[in-house]
Amino acid sequence: MKIIDGGVTSPLGFEAAGIHAGIKKEKPDMALVRSVCPAVPAGTFTTNVVKAAPVKWDSTVCASSEFVQAVVVNSGVANACTGPEGMKSCEEMAQVTGDLLGIPAESVFVASTGVIGRQMPMDKIVPGIEKLARSLADSRQAASDAAHAIMTTDTRPKEAACRIQLGGKTVTIGGMCKGSGMIHPNMATMLCFVTTDAAVDRCVLQQMLRGIVTDTFNMISVDGDTSTNDSVLVLANGMAGNEPFSGPCADYDELQEGLTYVLRELSKMIAGDGEGATSLFEVTVRGAATKEDARTLARSVASSSLVKAALFGHDANWGRILCALGYAGVPFDPDAVSLWIESAAGRLKLVENGMDTGYDEEKATQILSQDSVRAEALLSEGEAEATAWGCDLTYDYVRINGDYRS
Amino acid sequence: MKIIDGGVTSPLGFEAAGIHAGIKKEKPDMALVRSVCPAVPAGTFTTNVVKAAPVKWDSTVCASSEFVQAVVVNSGVANACTGPEGMKSCEEMAQVTGDLLGIPAESVFVASTGVIGRQMPMDKIVPGIEKLARSLADSRQAASDAAHAIMTTDTRPKEAACRIQLGGKTVTIGGMCKGSGMIHPNMATMLCFVTTDAAVDRCVLQQMLRGIVTDTFNMISVDGDTSTNDSVLVLANGMAGNEPFSGPCADYDELQEGLTYVLRELSKMIAGDGEGATSLFEVTVRGAATKEDARTLARSVASSSLVKAALFGHDANWGRILCALGYAGVPFDPDAVSLWIESAAGRLKLVENGMDTGYDEEKATQILSQDSVRAEALLSEGEAEATAWGCDLTYDYVRINGDYRS
Repeated sequence: MKIIDGGVTSPLGFEAAGIHAGIKKEKPDMALVRSVCPAVPAGTFTTNVVKAAPVKWDSTVCASSEFVQAVVVNSGVANACTGPEGMKSCEEMAQVTGDLLGIPAESVFVASTGVIGRQMPMDKIVPGIEKLARSLADSRQAASDAAHAIMTTDTRPKEAACRIQLGGKTVTIGGMCKGSGMIHPNMATMLCFVTTDAAVDRCVLQQMLRGIVTDTFNMISVDGDTSTNDSVLVLANGMAGNEPFSGPCADYDELQEGLTYVLRELSKMIAGDGEGATSLFEVTVRGAATKEDARTLARSVASSSLVKAALFGHDANWGRILCALGYAGVPFDPDAVSLWIESAAGRLKLVENGMDTGYDEEKATQILSQDSVRAEALLSEGEAEATAWGCDLTYDYVRINGDYRS
Repeated sequence: MKIIDGGVTSPLGFEAAGIHAGIKKEKPDMALVRSVCPAVPAGTFTTNVVKAAPVKWDSTVCASSEFVQAVVVNSGVANACTGPEGMKSCEEMAQVTGDLLGIPAESVFVASTGVIGRQMPMDKIVPGIEKLARSLADSRQAASDAAHAIMTTDTRPKEAACRIQLGGKTVTIGGMCKGSGMIHPNMATMLCFVTTDAAVDRCVLQQMLRGIVTDTFNMISVDGDTSTNDSVLVLANGMAGNEPFSGPCADYDELQEGLTYVLRELSKMIAGDGEGATSLFEVTVRGAATKEDARTLARSVASSSLVKAALFGHDANWGRILCALGYAGVPFDPDAVSLWIESAAGRLKLVENGMDTGYDEEKATQILSQDSVRAEALLSEGEAEATAWGCDLTYDYVRINGDYRS
């Protein structure tokens, strides 16, 4: 696998555009991604009972359309809690996009992100889609424009791409995502779009995606809230010309590695760009009885408001980390826990046998002052391990969320 | 039931003291509560896997001692993650207290709250207990002194008391508690001590307490963290002279009402005094399928960082409330939800059939600007209802927790 600078237009046969349609005052607010030929779809969606209209639409498309060829996205309004009118707006977005691109509405994914409860300003959206269709290009810039247009409180666009070899053919995977507040395990106001020119069986792709999301997007947390709109959508158009496969094989592993890389990088970008965040926080739990236990424990630490606030204060308050492990709902021997912190400034053991090691506080503060910090807990229950990602809890999180709508 | 101004010394036969032992620099940091005669104990404790030494001690006392006669408490150091040395310190606290009061160590409850991971400064604690024993008094002031001495980041002491009639006898119930950060369902760095002169069967008291805690202390949330030290302890010394009862009867209901009042008031004081909080936030969910569903839904809203930040900003961002209901893990029809907000400034319906009512934003801001705000959600699943309490999420929460230890 080779990491490349790229986004959704990196694979063969994909175009994109990002424009300002007027939903927001000034910033770009609509994006379109198109495959020049029919592509196999896969998707995972929010588990929230309250589902936005586009989530309902895309779930159906994902389950019943054999091919998908476009994704139309808007930021600014979430189209959630908007009733039948919201559903109609969503369908109209798919229809208008389909008509302009000469494909059925059922071949169009729709995604929306922003304020909940407001109806879609269709008088701006429809001309926006027309402008998008005219602006489509397969350039690096076009991918970047799209990545900018899907942002809400994100401070930077989020893109990742890589190349892999499948059966002697070069296959490219590119992706973009947005998400900053309302980010939590089981997805968040988080939208992620991945394109690839791999030829892959639809069921294989869907199953692979589900597994990867469990260890990437479902392991990040900014604030513990799971949104109404979360979606990860993948389009695979087969233009790389590789031989499709249907079960476990070397190609399967290679594609999985590539997809995992793109999804993990995008996940980490979201965690590190959490609203108001100054630091990416990576939590690894080792020595757990099961993989699921390890995931639960790692997420509990990465999600703890007290741990996150301590990180912001560069305070090695390890008691809060042990406490967050303790209330995760997973049994373990607290008297056998070891704990390290680590960053570009070094590595330090804070806890051994569940107690303070008498570590150097100054050194600990140095380690915690970096913009990417790791905590590693070692239990004595088994061999399983997992990693979760979060960020610190800052004044700016409160500022941003105290008055999001104005 | 009659509400009275009082605390742990209000019932007959209880004394208290609160002093400065030197664990903290200046503030009072140790308290003692004593019953002049043996009292029936009851207790509920943290569900955290990482349990502080006093929690282990008190659980054993609660399960195996027929009577308890004293509670010794310190603030400043939690005696959690302190290994065998911490357990020894805890036992010594009970032993020294017992010796001074002429009772067995096994008749003494111990409680600690503060920083995790530090060993107990026994050179200050032991003289502190001696000073406490000399200071015991049954006055209103003595109860207040004790309530002050158990505080950590609390901004105010928390006491409540009431009088009830059991079989023609006047019975008094008094209580104090502390807790501000790390407060979450299933208890928190939350300590609560309740005294009563009721004569009551030990099993009845324990069972009654467990039920009441489920709907009071387990329904409050400040920051989603459940601590290593949480305890609710009750001592009933029988000095009111009422006839004990063993099963459901009018007296049972009366005692339950009184105990519920004291525990609910203390719970609400903790929620409203959440670290950095400017507002108490009460969330009621009605029309749920089961009581447990209603509890889960109410807690989910009261715990949401995004909802709490919106409350701080006086922003009627009801989409976040629906979203928090949606990810609670309880199925319901989102298109049948109604939602109101309410405070001293009035009541307003924000949502009907899962959609915006077109309410007056200015009025909503007025309602949300009060220091106690209610949200009420009505579902269409059944008849069950529950209430949870929380607070807003503020800059001060981040400030307090960014550097708690220094």
